[in-house]
Amino acid sequence: MTQRMNLLMFSGDYDKAMAALILANTAKEMDVEVTIFFAFWGLFLVRDPEKATDEDKTTYEKMFGRMTPKGPEDLPLSKMNFAGIGKEMLLEMMEDDKAPRLIDFLNGARKKGVKFYACKLSVDIMGFKQEELLPELEIIEAKEYLTDALNSNMQLFI
Amino acid sequence: MTQRMNLLMFSGDYDKAMAALILANTAKEMDVEVTIFFAFWGLFLVRDPEKATDEDKTTYEKMFGRMTPKGPEDLPLSKMNFAGIGKEMLLEMMEDDKAPRLIDFLNGARKKGVKFYACKLSVDIMGFKQEELLPELEIIEAKEYLTDALNSNMQLFI
Amino acid sequence: MTQRMNLLMFSGDYDKAMAALILANTAKEMDVEVTIFFAFWGLFLVRDPEKATDEDKTTYEKMFGRMTPKGPEDLPLSKMNFAGIGKEMLLEMMEDDKAPRLIDFLNGARKKGVKFYACKLSVDIMGFKQEELLPELEIIEAKEYLTDALNSNMQLFI
Repeated sequence: MTQRMNLLMFSGDYDKAMAALILANTAKEMDVEVTIFFAFWGLFLVRDPEKATDEDKTTYEKMFGRMTPKGPEDLPLSKMNFAGIGKEMLLEMMEDDKAPRLIDFLNGARKKGVKFYACKLSVDIMGFKQEELLPELEIIEAKEYLTDALNSNMQLFI
Repeated sequence: MTQRMNLLMFSGDYDKAMAALILANTAKEMDVEVTIFFAFWGLFLVRDPEKATDEDKTTYEKMFGRMTPKGPEDLPLSKMNFAGIGKEMLLEMMEDDKAPRLIDFLNGARKKGVKFYACKLSVDIMGFKQEELLPELEIIEAKEYLTDALNSNMQLFI
Repeated sequence: MTQRMNLLMFSGDYDKAMAALILANTAKEMDVEVTIFFAFWGLFLVRDPEKATDEDKTTYEKMFGRMTPKGPEDLPLSKMNFAGIGKEMLLEMMEDDKAPRLIDFLNGARKKGVKFYACKLSVDIMGFKQEELLPELEIIEAKEYLTDALNSNMQLFI
């Protein structure tokens, strides 16, 4: 029987998103079914940097959209970010080891068929429009997330 | 057979507490048994704001009790809190979408019968008295948490 | 059948490391098999403070090694660290309750036979050498972590 892994991507941190996507891609290579449910700050990871819009948004939603990271490479570190200096240092260290960047892991996950879901309540509160997010992202409610998670072999809150 | 979800609420963040309680309430509506184990900073969520006391506390415990959030609506955001401005903005955005506040989700969970446990070691270290916490909160040891978690269909550390 | 718990220790925070190790030690006492997979900032917890070296490291790796916590007692709190003042206060409060320190929980886990693994990619990027880490730490790939986690009764991302 196929094994299943379910990740709830809550944080919008570069390093935690790396961890989630490395696990997702590795699991997929092991023929494990993988679901990622993006909620709250995790939505910043699946914004399409070229499709930001202000249309039909409240003033707060516009401000929020502009103040927050616009896609994967724009995310800060969860620690030692130091206004971006720590992140630059980590990126250099990754390059020295020929490790791919977050955007590569994200595109890998998309190609491998990792299932991407977004939390409806988070999308509504933050005022994101479907067209500002990656096209394969399906917007679902907490109930659908729970049905998937409860029937998975492992679940992580990241 | 009844499915079970076990959440370990470690962080004392408004946004993460929202996530935990939305999952808890939704799971309960799906007839899933739900346990939340409050530990460390997570205890701030189950303090009764009207029952803070200094009695029988060491100097550090008194200081700690005063410096820390006094119940759900007092919790900061895990990100972009900006001394409370970011949180106010998020609350406005929630109101625009008619989303309930954290306190409503907490009271919902209490009414629906989500099981609330507190970590004994955390309570002891932080010096909280039973009467400062929500009355239905049962104080248990790590062993009891683990017995419940190991026999649940999903567990999250939030 | 033996039950299994798998922890992914991602954060390098004193308080979260305490939580992980208390769960690990308690589970071991309950005859549960326990694995901890240290990744990213979690590696700071398993550095041997006396064995830091600069040999064979790039400039960034040297800087990184010096700027980051050098073992368990050097880790900051995830919240209210206040440049170390908050942590000192918590340590005093722990002492008042005769609670052991993080280093004691770590040594307890080592003695009890909790399995310690380190994430190969994290070790490579951060430039840590095997001899700078606790000797029983085995360096493994994400695939081996997933095999263990998928076949465990519970998994937490801490």
